[in-house]
This record gives sequence, structure tokens and C-alpha cells, in this order.
Amino acid sequence: MAEEQLSSYHPPLPPTTEEDRFSWLRLLRSRKVGPATFRRLMREHGTAQNALAALPEMARAAGIEGYEICPPGVVEAELKAAKAVRARLLCLGDPDYPKHLLDLQDTPPVLWAIGDPALLRRPAIALVGARNCSSLGTRMARALAHDLGKQGYVIVSGLARGVDTAAHLAGLSTGTIAVMAGGVDVVYPAENTHLAADIAAQGLRLSEQPPRMTPQARHFPRRNRIISGLAQAVVVVEAAAKSGSLITARDALDQGREVLAVPGHPFDARAAGCNLLLRDGARLVRNAQDVIEALPMQTEAAPQKPVQEIMKDLPPPPPQKRSLKQTARLHMRILDRLGPSPLAEDQLIRDLSSNAGDVGPALVDLELDGKIQRQAGGLLSRVE
Amino acid sequence: MAEEQLSSYHPPLPPTTEEDRFSWLRLLRSRKVGPATFRRLMREHGTAQNALAALPEMARAAGIEGYEICPPGVVEAELKAAKAVRARLLCLGDPDYPKHLLDLQDTPPVLWAIGDPALLRRPAIALVGARNCSSLGTRMARALAHDLGKQGYVIVSGLARGVDTAAHLAGLSTGTIAVMAGGVDVVYPAENTHLAADIAAQGLRLSEQPPRMTPQARHFPRRNRIISGLAQAVVVVEAAAKSGSLITARDALDQGREVLAVPGHPFDARAAGCNLLLRDGARLVRNAQDVIEALPMQTEAAPQKPVQEIMKDLPPPPPQKRSLKQTARLHMRILDRLGPSPLAEDQLIRDLSSNAGDVGPALVDLELDGKIQRQAGGLLSRVE
Repeated sequence: MAEEQLSSYHPPLPPTTEEDRFSWLRLLRSRKVGPATFRRLMREHGTAQNALAALPEMARAAGIEGYEICPPGVVEAELKAAKAVRARLLCLGDPDYPKHLLDLQDTPPVLWAIGDPALLRRPAIALVGARNCSSLGTRMARALAHDLGKQGYVIVSGLARGVDTAAHLAGLSTGTIAVMAGGVDVVYPAENTHLAADIAAQGLRLSEQPPRMTPQARHFPRRNRIISGLAQAVVVVEAAAKSGSLITARDALDQGREVLAVPGHPFDARAAGCNLLLRDGARLVRNAQDVIEALPMQTEAAPQKPVQEIMKDLPPPPPQKRSLKQTARLHMRILDRLGPSPLAEDQLIRDLSSNAGDVGPALVDLELDGKIQRQAGGLLSRVE
Repeated sequence: MAEEQLSSYHPPLPPTTEEDRFSWLRLLRSRKVGPATFRRLMREHGTAQNALAALPEMARAAGIEGYEICPPGVVEAELKAAKAVRARLLCLGDPDYPKHLLDLQDTPPVLWAIGDPALLRRPAIALVGARNCSSLGTRMARALAHDLGKQGYVIVSGLARGVDTAAHLAGLSTGTIAVMAGGVDVVYPAENTHLAADIAAQGLRLSEQPPRMTPQARHFPRRNRIISGLAQAVVVVEAAAKSGSLITARDALDQGREVLAVPGHPFDARAAGCNLLLRDGARLVRNAQDVIEALPMQTEAAPQKPVQEIMKDLPPPPPQKRSLKQTARLHMRILDRLGPSPLAEDQLIRDLSSNAGDVGPALVDLELDGKIQRQAGGLLSRVE
């Protein structure tokens, strides 16, 4: 009996049946459930099925009227669309799931893949940069992708115009991965349709979004974290100041990835972003050799971390049920502490003189309720 | 009596009379006496006059046949030539002698100056780079010199073509110092004659060589150490790989100076030297602000270090006279230890299980004898 009670707190296993996978998708596609909440719910409920069963009650307790979990038809449509484009689902914990993404704070629970997932097991370098890059930028992207490819590195990029396109093209014969912002079957820009088909045939296309999803602005930074997450190093080939590539670079630093940049003359505005990164300590890249020398010491590929371990660092589930009144009071105290500036979760717990077991579920409630936001690095902020 | 014996070991004073200055020059212009030997001789003999009196006997003891100190006529000619071009002698320890040069391992004992020595008391930045620089390089040198000048920094350079010329021109109105490889009156290249005259009138020209000395290849690296020595930071504006500017940059690092470089695109060979420096950790320069931010914390100008202190870190003089046989044996042991690769003097002393008081004079003998060479950083090597 005691054992049975404990069993619901065991870390979840990767999905093994079609039904499991269906439930994973259904949980993930439910409203207000992102990668971080998904992880927390799995930690607390053991399986996606259990989490789905608990969600409506949690939402009701948090005061959300009429919360409904993702209808099964939505997942059925997603699976059907994926099948039509021969996309394969990679779930966290699957043998083919890219192990480097386990380093992320918000590891995507699932990825859709078209092409050869074996590329995910090889060391990879991300090449990113301006869509409107100069001819120098195009040439440099091509040279780096070609030479790094010859050295055995898979080239990861985002299938955008400019640097991305040049990098994928030059890396096609040696191995390239395109991480898409929208659905894995939605090619943007349209002029890269042919390249995207070549990558599906010879390389790999990946996306955490459902197939057929049109890419939206908010998808790009999320996509970029996967690009840098897959790679040992991120090379910014050419970037103006205040460009998206700089955001990718800073996120990559947060992920513990090596960030490198190709310099340009300060009078060339298209190099301003790269020079800024270099001034702030990024490694300088003149050629593929510079990239390889900057990589962290080559170690044996670490054995794939089981999902159990990934979930282990999350706070333990609540030791006992609290009254609605107690819960409401805790919610109020949390919201009082949080503002628009992000605060670390453990700092919040200390500030409240509470413990993770009490605060954790309250945070899930508030997050589901849309009152707080969870950001990379375990930071929390209040939604105004 | 004991006091009188000790007095000859007192650190020397800067020259105060015309006769002193004459003797300083005469000692410095004597064969095999460079800045390091000059310092050591002054340390051991108290005054230039005493050192001059001791030199022939030291040379004889070292087995040099017919060694003669510099004839007085040579110094008379130097002084006359200097007077003709209104050059002023700045001796180590003089109030006008640039205090930053005291940081060098081989501080020049004297400098000839034409122009305004007050510039030596202001904070200075060295701008160096290619003679055949691109138009981007010229524009950058001009912009940096102009903007740094406006911020109160004196621009130090070497009056060469390209970057140097652009830097001096742009720094002329706010303060610029040209350090010449040959005599302070020997302008090279000739096309800079007008600029050199302007610098004499509005800025300062400096050289450690005697006036009328034609610049020779070996003078350039020695000149460059003064350029970087005068400055808080050395900015390499544009430099190819394997260029002289890179040697200046590395010497500047050895001197503890901040080295900065302006980046360029890796496909531009004229930026290869700068990119190499940046890859190896030099600070990146996009504009004058980057230079200023990279400077060490602004501290009050340190009071001028007296010559006594400069000489103090040299090993003490020998406690007693040794027999010729003992001396010869020590010389042999030293030469056995030394090879063409430089060895630190204190390492040598430890290897010999000896002390600085014994080894020091033997090293002077061997140096005068041309059997060993003294290099920057107190390193010694054997002349093959």
C-alpha cells in the first residue's frame, strides 16, 4: 500500500506505447503547458495520462473557468499531418532524441523530424547570421560549413535566407540539420523549398511545433534555442547590431555553448553585431580551424541521460494537501514577491521562507492561470 | 673609511653638470655598452666617470684586446649636431624624462628631444600599423587619433607611412609624439619632412640614437619599445600577418601595456595581423571609446621614480675581489650553462649555486667580451 502511494511520485518513463506518445502530445498541446510546465507535471504525476487527468482540477483550483485539456482530435490531426510528410516523433528519453538538448532549461519534450536522425549523434556546429548578409558573409558561411563538414561536424542552422542558406548548402553533402521555426513541413522562405527537400533527403529537418504550423514571431527565439542547443558551438558569421543573431548568441552563452564570431571592419555596419560579441569576449573565427580549436575538450559522448534523471532535479511533490484557503494565501504571497523582473525560483522560495514541495505546485497553478511566466534558467516573473 | 668603501656602491644620481651629461653620453656610446650594461655599470661604479675609468681594465680582464672607450670627440660632435637642430638631452632621472619608460627592462639612459617635452607628462596612446594600409586603415587611424586627442590623449607613433602618418596628422592639434628610429633630425620617409617639422613645432620628436644617425634595421624594434613604453595602450590599427606591428604588439604585452586591435574581415589579408592578436586575447577596438574603456584604471600620476630606485633592483656589487683564475673559472661555468636559448639571470645564478654579487660582474665581463647577450626581461643567451 505504501509502495503504491509512492509509485505516483516516481519519475516518469519515456513513452513506450502509441497511447503514451499520444498522451504526451495531448498534454504538451494543452493550453498553458509549455516545456517547463510539461516537465513539472510529469514529475508530479508520473505519466502524461495522470497529468492530463489532474489538469482540469488544477485549473479549477487556480480559478480558471472552463479549462479544457487538448481534445484528442487535435492530436489525431497532428499525427495524421506528420504521417503525410513522413515526419517522425522523437520524445524526450527516446534513443534518437538529441542528448545535447538535455542541457537546456526548457528541453523540448518532443521534436518532429524528417530525414536522418543519426545526424543527431554526431558533433555539430551552428552557423547563424544575417538574412541580408554581404557577399563576404555568404562566402565565409560557405567556407566554414564546407571545411567543418569535411572535419566531421554537422552544420546546424535555421533555413533562413543569407548565412543559413549558404551554410546548409555547403554542409549538405557532409551533414546538415535545419531547425524550423514553424512546422517541420512548413518551409520559409519559399525560395528554400528545393533546399529543404534536399535536407530532408540527405540531412535532417527538426521542429518542436506541430506539422502545418505557420511560423510566428514567438517561434523564432524558441527555435534558436534548439539550434544552439544541438551544437557544441555557435558561430555568428555576420550580424548587425541589435540583430536576432545576437539574441541567439546570448542565449547560447546561457546554455553554456561556446559562442564565436567572424570579425569585420568597424566601418562595415554589417559586422557590428559580431564585433560587439568579440569585444565582449566571444572567440574570434577566421576559419574552420579556429572553430575547432575553440571547442571544449573532446570527450566520449556521454551516455544518454534517462528522463528520470532530467526530472530528478525538480522539487519533490507536495507532502500533503492544503486547504483552498491556504493555497489562495500562498498564491497571494507568491504574486506579492514577483514583479515583471525575473526572479530565480529558489530565491523566491527562500524569500517566502517556504520549501519547494509547497511552492512548486502553487507555481504550476499560477502558471496555468497565466499569472506568472516561467523563463529559461528557472526564472519567474509576474504577468502584468 | 668603511663609509668611503661603501660610497662607491651607492646608486648613481642623475647627471647634474654638463660634465656629468658628457660622461653619460660617452659611456653610453662606448662599444658594447647598451642600456642594460649602462645600468649595470652605473650600479657598480656609482658615476659614469667611474664606470668609464673602469671599462678598459674590465675589457682587458675579459680578454678583449685594444678596447677603447668612446673618444670625447664623438660626444662633442653629437652635442654639436644636437645643438644645430635644437635637440635637448633628456637623461634618466631628469624631471622631463618620461616616467613610463622606467617600466621597461632596458630603459634608454638618454633621449634626444625636439619640441615640447611637456607632452610626455600627459596620458598617451600609441597607434601603430601597416605602412601600406588600406583606405579603411587610414580612415580608422585618423578617426581614433582625432577622437582620442579630443579626450586628452597624446598620440604616439613612429612617423612611418600609412597608419603612423594618418595618426600623427590627426593628432597634431591635440598633441602627438613621433619616436624616430634613427637620429631625431633624420626624417624617414622623406615625404614626411613637412609633417616632421610640424611635429617639432607643435608636438614632440624623440630618439635614443645620436642626431644624424641614419635609421638601420636594428633600430626599429628598439624604437618600437619606446613607442609602446610611452603609451598606456598600443592600438594596432591594421596589420598583416608577420608584420612589424605584431612584434611591437608582443613587446608591448611584455612591457605590461594594454594591446588592442581593430578587426577586419578574415578575407582581407591586411587585417590578418590584427585578427591574430584579437584571437589571442587583444581587446577589440571599434572606436576611441573602446580604447578608453580598455585602459587600466586612471590613477594619479606616480611620482617620478629616482634613478636610485631604478638601479636598486640590480644585484649588489661583488663583496671582494677574485683572482683572475677564479674569474676565468666562473666565466667558463657561466658559458657552459648558457646556450642560444635565453635563460633568466636568476635561474642561471641558482644553477651555478652562486650569488648575484659574484655572477653579476662576470656577466658584464662576458657581455663586454661579446660572448653573451643580454635581452629584454633579464634573459641571457650565449653568442655562438
